[in-house]
Amino acid sequence: MDVGPVSTSFFELLATDGGGRAGIIHTPHGDLQTPLFAPVGTQATVKAITPEQLQQIGATLVLANAYHLYLRPGDERIAALGGLHEFMAWKGPILTDSGGFQVFSLTESRQVDSDGVTFRSHIDGSTHRLTPEKVIAIQENLGADIIMAFDECPEPLDRVYNEQAMIRTHNWAERCLAAKTRSDQVLFGIVQGGIFADLREQSASAIASMGFPGIAIGGLSVGESKQDMLAMLEIVGSVLPPDRPRYLMGVGFPQDLIEAVKRGIDMFDCVLPTRMARNHAALTRLGRLNMRNATFAEDVRPIDPDCKCYTCLTFTRAYLRHLIASGEMLAATLLTIHNLYTLVSLTADLRQAVIDGQLDQFSDQFLANDNKHRPPES
Amino acid sequence: MDVGPVSTSFFELLATDGGGRAGIIHTPHGDLQTPLFAPVGTQATVKAITPEQLQQIGATLVLANAYHLYLRPGDERIAALGGLHEFMAWKGPILTDSGGFQVFSLTESRQVDSDGVTFRSHIDGSTHRLTPEKVIAIQENLGADIIMAFDECPEPLDRVYNEQAMIRTHNWAERCLAAKTRSDQVLFGIVQGGIFADLREQSASAIASMGFPGIAIGGLSVGESKQDMLAMLEIVGSVLPPDRPRYLMGVGFPQDLIEAVKRGIDMFDCVLPTRMARNHAALTRLGRLNMRNATFAEDVRPIDPDCKCYTCLTFTRAYLRHLIASGEMLAATLLTIHNLYTLVSLTADLRQAVIDGQLDQFSDQFLANDNKHRPPES
Repeated sequence: MDVGPVSTSFFELLATDGGGRAGIIHTPHGDLQTPLFAPVGTQATVKAITPEQLQQIGATLVLANAYHLYLRPGDERIAALGGLHEFMAWKGPILTDSGGFQVFSLTESRQVDSDGVTFRSHIDGSTHRLTPEKVIAIQENLGADIIMAFDECPEPLDRVYNEQAMIRTHNWAERCLAAKTRSDQVLFGIVQGGIFADLREQSASAIASMGFPGIAIGGLSVGESKQDMLAMLEIVGSVLPPDRPRYLMGVGFPQDLIEAVKRGIDMFDCVLPTRMARNHAALTRLGRLNMRNATFAEDVRPIDPDCKCYTCLTFTRAYLRHLIASGEMLAATLLTIHNLYTLVSLTADLRQAVIDGQLDQFSDQFLANDNKHRPPES
Repeated sequence: MDVGPVSTSFFELLATDGGGRAGIIHTPHGDLQTPLFAPVGTQATVKAITPEQLQQIGATLVLANAYHLYLRPGDERIAALGGLHEFMAWKGPILTDSGGFQVFSLTESRQVDSDGVTFRSHIDGSTHRLTPEKVIAIQENLGADIIMAFDECPEPLDRVYNEQAMIRTHNWAERCLAAKTRSDQVLFGIVQGGIFADLREQSASAIASMGFPGIAIGGLSVGESKQDMLAMLEIVGSVLPPDRPRYLMGVGFPQDLIEAVKRGIDMFDCVLPTRMARNHAALTRLGRLNMRNATFAEDVRPIDPDCKCYTCLTFTRAYLRHLIASGEMLAATLLTIHNLYTLVSLTADLRQAVIDGQLDQFSDQFLANDNKHRPPES
């Protein structure tokens, strides 16, 4: 369905279908068609593949991590080397995560106060301090197209902690906006609030009112139920203005992507497809396959006969199983290509379904086929 | 220099320059321009890169190993899956090594008799037996374009052992010829004889007289001096008929390639470039670079400013050093691409130098520049 002129200079909403949205994000390194899935390149590389392979997969936006790159090789060094695009040779748009999630994961080695967080490096134990201002400075050195506010990311189930963390996140969001100086970067705010409907509503209103051109939803897919996650997306979606892209952080299961797109999400990232690949699991539209399984030793089919990725167009399950049994690195590369292609092409198909007004049909059909792979594996 | 019609249906010698030769090898999977360097794909994969990347590097012939593939996944399984080309998705020519070198490397767990070798698998300790007939059957199952006779590969310095091994190698070579049944594969004989001039001469004469369409020189680059190696190449070269390609097994240092081409060698293989890449060493025409070195942390140059490989056209030394320091797999992939390109392009340049009658000039210039990289590393 055409929705008319709901747009900013950063984002255009082109069509909706039920709660689903199709749009375009404009960045200095090119346009992004949404919904989209962004592969994760934590340390300025999507693990096990080249930028050329990433482009062949059809990836458009790549995520890197400010926390990791601040510690190694250093954001100032990357700036001196020409910025992150030049450094990692990715010509397309890049998004940097602020490091909030990573710092708050260091539960044993960090101390939070209202001004920021002091923590010990996971690499060498050295002490560091991040504040909203520092996190913006780091991301300005890195030079991604989209940068993220510094947020406090609590466990989703503790209401008292979630309320405190939300208030701090709003305060830090204001400070990030004030600290930002580069005009060629867009800063996203992050909605928190755990699994508490009133907190999520309050957080979405607060973050939206600050004027961020894009809004992320943090603190989900970290242990809560699927039902809770989807309920939070519905509440947040009902509050957010339609002219800003909505980014659900850290979500990458195919079923979750579909349910989230139906609830208005435009952007996703997740380490799932790349991490699974290194653990020899293939992600398909029919479920997961453990490619180490001996049943594949003489299987001449590709991982997914309907998949158009390089791996599926070129290699058999038998060959992949041989590479895994032989401890060959190429297994991780070929499975990374396949798994990323599965999610990137799925979001492209979801976009087309929205444009065609077929989102519910696409979703019903997909979910009916899901897990068809399971029986032969057990 | 044009040499006129020195050719068989398998090999054409197009030009010579001093001892150097330029030719064409015809195979069912395409022509090979010689001299050439063949990347090693021991377990049916050139470690850390895809066949697509291998093709982009300019590689033409790929080596795989009969011993490894017999043990895992099994040569009969590969035959059932359509043969090695199909299995590993390499459309170009393939050569399989017979496994002689690997079996004889298992000094603690093999027993040789005049009929063959009994050994224990390096994977699971199971007992196996290889004979010349069995080795041909394995290689016929694998289906490479060029297959190798089963040889005994001794330490190069023990004369008594070398004489015995040579006699056995000649006997096994005859048996391999008799056992061969496929008309779409070409079988190479292997010259042995250690560092003993009279044994090498005797072996080259014996192997040449058996009518192999191509002849390999084994048992070199295994601990002897460079001087001894080159002396053996000169002796063997003086005996071999000019119309058969000459393959120096296991040699891959750039300087050795040049010296060997000047002495009539047409084909090379070596694990050096791929193994060095996984140990983070870059092979260049100016010497070796240890890319982990902290001096590269802010070096915006490519590994080799004159190199045209994907890695050098795309990435800085600083980025490669970051990948290595961060434990990222992509480092091995990018260095493998670079190191293989260095040797593949070097043999292509040597071929052109022969055709242009410039081999000595090329060699002098190359050797004068060699090791220029060394000082900044120390």
